[in-house]
Amino acid sequence: MSANSEIEESLVLAPKFDADGLVTCIATDAGSGELLMVAHMNAEALRRTIETGEAWYFSRSRKALWKKGESSGHIQRVVEMRVDCDQDAVWIKVEQQGAGACHTGRRSCFYRAVPLRQTGAVALEFRDAEKAFDLRAVYDRK
Amino acid sequence: MSANSEIEESLVLAPKFDADGLVTCIATDAGSGELLMVAHMNAEALRRTIETGEAWYFSRSRKALWKKGESSGHIQRVVEMRVDCDQDAVWIKVEQQGAGACHTGRRSCFYRAVPLRQTGAVALEFRDAEKAFDLRAVYDRK
Repeated sequence: MSANSEIEESLVLAPKFDADGLVTCIATDAGSGELLMVAHMNAEALRRTIETGEAWYFSRSRKALWKKGESSGHIQRVVEMRVDCDQDAVWIKVEQQGAGACHTGRRSCFYRAVPLRQTGAVALEFRDAEKAFDLRAVYDRK
Repeated sequence: MSANSEIEESLVLAPKFDADGLVTCIATDAGSGELLMVAHMNAEALRRTIETGEAWYFSRSRKALWKKGESSGHIQRVVEMRVDCDQDAVWIKVEQQGAGACHTGRRSCFYRAVPLRQTGAVALEFRDAEKAFDLRAVYDRK
């Protein structure tokens, strides 16, 4: 086997972290299959997610480890985790606690559609964009 | 509105490319909802995907634009495209032509599961890992 196919057929977890020490993580709803969010994990976030079965991420903007739902209560219970062929991406199927995964108040972060088969300026369209929870009630309750 | 909420509620397509000029792209099967692959798009790949309705990506390893299926015939017809709240990720729902999205011969790149709620060394488990097509028949046919 080539070096690549050894990685692709291996049963050893060997995440291919990028220059910042991160892999991409895709979270989908374990029930509906809906794509909820895309985020990143460093080695510590990955380890904690595997050990606890609850989603931990690494925030690139805050340069900090965070547990999903630690401030909102919207924890993600991981039902299944998978890695992709070259192990630079992780897929978690989650039971999303609370109303939604997106910090804007929506169930999913992907609430705007891009019209296809056109040239020039693109106007987005809201889709499934109703807010599932009131931001103030969740984040300003202290 | 804050600068962030202006971006989040805007209907202007304004992708937030990273230092390498890329956004993350998640491709799911438009029929089953299954996660097929995670890849990247630069501005040109994004433009071509929007204009043609077929998936174009940018290969980080080959540093080159590529059309999905250009060598395998396994083109992805895009049924819907969405962007996430901060526009650094794109989700495409595709009709996968041919047998699969993964270059290893599988339908999806995510054919190995990571056991959860355990500590120490992790052994992956094949899941949905049967090969959907014969690599030699697809890539060595010239």
